[in-house]
Amino acid sequence: MANVLILGAGMMGSAFSFPLADAGHAVRLVGTHLDREWIVAVRETGIHPKLKIKLPEGVTPFTHDELAEALTGAIDLIVLGVNSAGVDWAVEQLGPLLKTPPPILMLTKGLRAVQDRLRILPDIVREGLARHGVSTTKVGAVGGPCIAGELAARRDSSVVIASADAAFLDRVLPLLAAPYYHAHPSTDVVGVEACAAFKNLYTLAVGFPAGLLAKQGRAPNDAFMHNLAASLFAQSLREMEHFVHFMGGASANVRGLPGAGDLYVTCQGGRNTRLAYLLGSGLRYREAKARYLADQTLEGAELALAIGPTLDHLFQQGTLNPVVFPLAAAILDAICRDLPMQVPWTAFHRE
Amino acid sequence: MANVLILGAGMMGSAFSFPLADAGHAVRLVGTHLDREWIVAVRETGIHPKLKIKLPEGVTPFTHDELAEALTGAIDLIVLGVNSAGVDWAVEQLGPLLKTPPPILMLTKGLRAVQDRLRILPDIVREGLARHGVSTTKVGAVGGPCIAGELAARRDSSVVIASADAAFLDRVLPLLAAPYYHAHPSTDVVGVEACAAFKNLYTLAVGFPAGLLAKQGRAPNDAFMHNLAASLFAQSLREMEHFVHFMGGASANVRGLPGAGDLYVTCQGGRNTRLAYLLGSGLRYREAKARYLADQTLEGAELALAIGPTLDHLFQQGTLNPVVFPLAAAILDAICRDLPMQVPWTAFHRE
Repeated sequence: MANVLILGAGMMGSAFSFPLADAGHAVRLVGTHLDREWIVAVRETGIHPKLKIKLPEGVTPFTHDELAEALTGAIDLIVLGVNSAGVDWAVEQLGPLLKTPPPILMLTKGLRAVQDRLRILPDIVREGLARHGVSTTKVGAVGGPCIAGELAARRDSSVVIASADAAFLDRVLPLLAAPYYHAHPSTDVVGVEACAAFKNLYTLAVGFPAGLLAKQGRAPNDAFMHNLAASLFAQSLREMEHFVHFMGGASANVRGLPGAGDLYVTCQGGRNTRLAYLLGSGLRYREAKARYLADQTLEGAELALAIGPTLDHLFQQGTLNPVVFPLAAAILDAICRDLPMQVPWTAFHRE
Repeated sequence: MANVLILGAGMMGSAFSFPLADAGHAVRLVGTHLDREWIVAVRETGIHPKLKIKLPEGVTPFTHDELAEALTGAIDLIVLGVNSAGVDWAVEQLGPLLKTPPPILMLTKGLRAVQDRLRILPDIVREGLARHGVSTTKVGAVGGPCIAGELAARRDSSVVIASADAAFLDRVLPLLAAPYYHAHPSTDVVGVEACAAFKNLYTLAVGFPAGLLAKQGRAPNDAFMHNLAASLFAQSLREMEHFVHFMGGASANVRGLPGAGDLYVTCQGGRNTRLAYLLGSGLRYREAKARYLADQTLEGAELALAIGPTLDHLFQQGTLNPVVFPLAAAILDAICRDLPMQVPWTAFHRE
């Protein structure tokens, strides 16, 4: 039995307590300052209000101001389940409290644009902790198709645990041995993290035809627009592979769980797909966000806003060839410049 | 304006008359002996009963016994739209009538197992015509996500036209220039055709969780089984890539339109997905087929039955490594041996 601390008690952080607890570990689930009401609810009822399910025995809830207490004693693994905007906050919270830090496993997905480079969040966390004098931390990441609600329902889920460090994988993978949680190792952290981030961006395209269909209306023979969605799906994988290569990752994960698998599952529903639908129905981003998704975190749009200016610059200076990213360019136009979403057909599927 | 003859007036053959006619060509649509009632209906009403839509002006319907008449004069392109079981019949019909044959473009999808090799249908057709003394025929193929009903509704559709012959591509691609039909060239005929065939096989897996969910019932939090479907989707692409390599094709089409794109669209509905659902709900193949799909052509099951014994042999003798095809093996067990469909988790997603 290991002691595991999860920081972040949103959907994914809380759902991750299921395979850990079911594998026999003691889980300390620490909410952020934004998660207080969920931690209070779990304490009172055992049920997580967003997951709509009772957390396992063996999960102990803590509020964010109890983090030091939650870190008492030996901790074998820290899981970071904050959202991408909360990464710096998490580093500031953990930095002063960690002495000999355990491995850190990140559920948080996103990228940072730093001086014309796209950087993955495990590197940001490792460097942030080093500034607090915590310099030996090993930070890995989880990728692949894993809807939180399904994990919490103990549905079979396949993921990739990514770390360049074999000792990290040897130590962390055995901790995740719940019968419904199928974790596979990968040493390509950049490939896994790039796929995990960009799948949210490209979901804004793949979900677009459903809205366009609603706007245009059914065909005389009731045909849908799946051909268009499939074309966007394939173009998305093509562009993701180019982004992965640019960042130094390998191809294999693009057609694997972190790329094709996670893009597939993200397009089955959720907030990014909802935004894509609204864009397809003719709304522009700002109006769609304000009218229907005001209080929601839209990871695909957040990523576009976070890295869009840097991508624009990389396209302009030719570091990235804009010819191979027509769909990314269309998404940036829609999100960063609030233009109507256009499908740039003639630029697609080039050899 | 070109003269194009389509042989096969089922859903896909007939739908293909739309981009051709809309590009300004004269289309002669010749039904097989199985399509007679549809040709009669088109003659009487203009509406194709299966497509549920009026065929374009410029499409002239013929019954199969009028093939010689339909071939009168200069024909610039022959499109083969028969089903995979009809390929030999089509060769027997066309062989005696062709003198200086035009290019042939195949919509028909499938593979043949010949002496421990998996062979693509364009090669079968070319060799069959050569036995009739028609030896200079160039046979290409269409791949990619294209549901017939959507093409007939003039929905945007992206496909790949595959031929190893650059002159074929230069001649055929310009004939397909309808505004909603986005055709891209590929010289990897084997890759395109292998993806086109295997996507039907693997759809029997990706559609499986929907049936399993119906059998097991909703979770307390109403979770679906998209994580499982996504895992099967990614494993399918992985195995398709191995099959493509074995047959001599390249990787690029696997994560492109013919592989990921076509698998995505095929999983959105249709007969193969229906069979997958029934297998997931607990029925075995023979019962599912007999009770619910007796009169349907199930391409995925047809492929399993056609190449299953050869794949078994290739696995046994080690020509194909069974370790990298656990999902194909599970599908062959379900279809060829009528066993319950099992998800072989521990064998998935190996590096």
